[in-house]
Amino acid sequence: MSVSTAATDRSVSAPLPVLGRDVTVPLVTGGEVTYAALDYAASAPALQRVWDDVAAYAPYYGSVHRGAGYLSQLSTDLFENARRTVAAFLDCRPADQVVFTRSTTDSLNLLARALPADCRVFVFETEHHASLLPWREAQVTYVDAPRTPEQAVATLERALADREPHGPALVCVTGASNVTGELWPVRRLAAAAHAHGARIVLDAAQLAPHHPVSVRDLDVDWVAFSGHKLYAPFGAGVLAGRADWLREAEPYLAGGGASRRVSRRTDGGVDVEWHEGAARHEAGSPNVIGAYAIASACKALTEAGFDTLVAREQHLIRTVREGLAEVPEVSVLSLFGDDAPRVGVVSFVVAGWNSSHFAAALSAEYGIGVRDGLFCAHPLVRTLLGSDPETQGECGAPEAAPGEKSLNAVRVSFGAGTPDEHVERFVTAVKELVRDGAKWRYRTEDGRCVPAV
Amino acid sequence: MSVSTAATDRSVSAPLPVLGRDVTVPLVTGGEVTYAALDYAASAPALQRVWDDVAAYAPYYGSVHRGAGYLSQLSTDLFENARRTVAAFLDCRPADQVVFTRSTTDSLNLLARALPADCRVFVFETEHHASLLPWREAQVTYVDAPRTPEQAVATLERALADREPHGPALVCVTGASNVTGELWPVRRLAAAAHAHGARIVLDAAQLAPHHPVSVRDLDVDWVAFSGHKLYAPFGAGVLAGRADWLREAEPYLAGGGASRRVSRRTDGGVDVEWHEGAARHEAGSPNVIGAYAIASACKALTEAGFDTLVAREQHLIRTVREGLAEVPEVSVLSLFGDDAPRVGVVSFVVAGWNSSHFAAALSAEYGIGVRDGLFCAHPLVRTLLGSDPETQGECGAPEAAPGEKSLNAVRVSFGAGTPDEHVERFVTAVKELVRDGAKWRYRTEDGRCVPAV
Repeated sequence: MSVSTAATDRSVSAPLPVLGRDVTVPLVTGGEVTYAALDYAASAPALQRVWDDVAAYAPYYGSVHRGAGYLSQLSTDLFENARRTVAAFLDCRPADQVVFTRSTTDSLNLLARALPADCRVFVFETEHHASLLPWREAQVTYVDAPRTPEQAVATLERALADREPHGPALVCVTGASNVTGELWPVRRLAAAAHAHGARIVLDAAQLAPHHPVSVRDLDVDWVAFSGHKLYAPFGAGVLAGRADWLREAEPYLAGGGASRRVSRRTDGGVDVEWHEGAARHEAGSPNVIGAYAIASACKALTEAGFDTLVAREQHLIRTVREGLAEVPEVSVLSLFGDDAPRVGVVSFVVAGWNSSHFAAALSAEYGIGVRDGLFCAHPLVRTLLGSDPETQGECGAPEAAPGEKSLNAVRVSFGAGTPDEHVERFVTAVKELVRDGAKWRYRTEDGRCVPAV
Repeated sequence: MSVSTAATDRSVSAPLPVLGRDVTVPLVTGGEVTYAALDYAASAPALQRVWDDVAAYAPYYGSVHRGAGYLSQLSTDLFENARRTVAAFLDCRPADQVVFTRSTTDSLNLLARALPADCRVFVFETEHHASLLPWREAQVTYVDAPRTPEQAVATLERALADREPHGPALVCVTGASNVTGELWPVRRLAAAAHAHGARIVLDAAQLAPHHPVSVRDLDVDWVAFSGHKLYAPFGAGVLAGRADWLREAEPYLAGGGASRRVSRRTDGGVDVEWHEGAARHEAGSPNVIGAYAIASACKALTEAGFDTLVAREQHLIRTVREGLAEVPEVSVLSLFGDDAPRVGVVSFVVAGWNSSHFAAALSAEYGIGVRDGLFCAHPLVRTLLGSDPETQGECGAPEAAPGEKSLNAVRVSFGAGTPDEHVERFVTAVKELVRDGAKWRYRTEDGRCVPAV
């Protein structure tokens, strides 16, 4: 792609306004610069629209459910309407349930506690830990990393077909990798799961902010996502999908809201009758602001139009990938290869650089916020780095010294609020750092790589 | 107390500014009136200070933990500082841990999953369902409702002494009842628990917003509370206290953030090394804004001074209780009697009135938001109403027809943001409704009692 095409692309649309777009940060080399938030895959900034909606609602916030006051009724309606907005956003089936959780991690832990007896779980080893680990009470088959989407489908089919006994099964799969950004063949995996009598849950944490997700089109049984990656960082997430397993499961949390009727028995014990709808798994006062913020983001993204958002993001992806491709020292991590469709998440290592050091220099010298580490997907990153599991870094502990062989990677990620300037600055910064080295010295302090003073 | 004393009390201090203090709502009888939010025990409005702090921070929101950018570092520091602020607010011991959860319900469910093997749980039948129900995997002793604080201590001591075998035990007790507002003798209950080799967790959901809570003075092992009742309704709560059981427990949620190191085994399985600190139970991206809002509320209450806040609230309580005492048709619910110390929570029934109808009329004709029902404390409310458990109402279904015998109660509750006018309007409204009847007709629709049109 030529520069002139990029310029044309850029004129197609502007980024959606997000909070923090004008925040400046100090540079260790002097002066200040507008902060380039390029860690959307961890947490995206709030859309201005989401913030404005929350701010407009906040004075009307009231206790929900049994509150008899005007603001309680309004807040209860707003909360239940948020459920309907999310169902529409995900193109759910009429009988599907939308449960508000705290995050994707929470959603998948909830589903893990709702598995029927003897349900086996099938999950690729390439998943984020939130998809990889919640299935603690089930027998789990970890499927080896595929190197093509076709291989993913074939490997899963074989694993499902081979299961003994051929009982209930659940497949958990990501929609877009939080490491490579690559899209997974969700529709084909869902068809494979169903063909083999299994169900499937889609981890859409990285997909929903970037692409339309249709439960019906993809034919997935459940979908999970997080507000804080969907421009609505107010502590809420979603699990949406089939009601049957959820209805039959023990309530996720025990407490008020989930309990319809509690009575003392004559033998001194307590009888509990639980709710059957979404409330069954939402004990405690719901996070009304968190749910409303998610609904606001769903509406904002829908109104902006995913066609436009995807076109713009693909332009940003091309800028980043083409820029990195010009630097021989940079190796981009990929499972499915250069032609795989992807969202705005790119991970890489730089020959001769420690990733924590590289990320710290991007921040301190260029005002660019990226992430370094294993991205809560340790087996995948180790596979992609081709490194010995025994010598790998770990979450929360950056590598010790600048210049060592990289055991972690650097990840840059972006989305609907990212202006072209941020990714252009990032590409320039990578080129300058590789060519000239860091302008400052860095050291590790309290588990962080920081400028040495 | 005479009116002139009340007038003097009033001049002592003003309510703390809260969001929504100027919101007006329509009356079914015509016109608009400032909304009187008197359902603080369910959810309190946000303190203006909390909102201002959240609004000032929101543009600086960034991904926490491994984010290398300036805003990520700032947000990580802010999140960890929030932990320290909460620890100071609760006067925790140096080795105590502060875990951010989503609510008191969530905090107690977390602790329930951290019980050592064969731990027995002792809980008064008078507790909120959030304290009554989470102990699903333990053997639970439900202690009968005491009628004095002394009886509470004696009954608990007997139950603990009688346990067979004399193994690990946990007592869960409320600090202030969400139905009667009465304070429980926490320090004495803690001493009793410890004397009998048990531990104790304090449900401070209704206490912390109204009174200082000192983990050290009370000598409780854990304390739980919710942001949304502490003027910080952003989806977060707290469990604070001893680290040992939490460190030894399986992580509450499985996922990123809680996992330090995940590796594929040669046999195809997965090995996980979990974090040991608070992160162990905080898998998924933390609710930074929720935690920061709680910290902001802790600071605001501390700075306002609990001496001042308590004095003001006690004045409001007297206004309500003395007003209701002048209406013979009103019966206030109480376990411990008129002289018991209490917070701003008063529940009552009105002879000849259905509670849902009464609450609906307070809202529609006076702009006052209260709550009707069993307040997620079914056994307690039934005991206090002296009614047959079989014929009781249930959460989510108001009584059918105005005029029936009340199976539910009405609850009025208030706090640091409540102006005198709200409770004065409430007392006037109760007197007028009882004397003159409702001015409008009401009907039940979608489980709510609403004005008939």
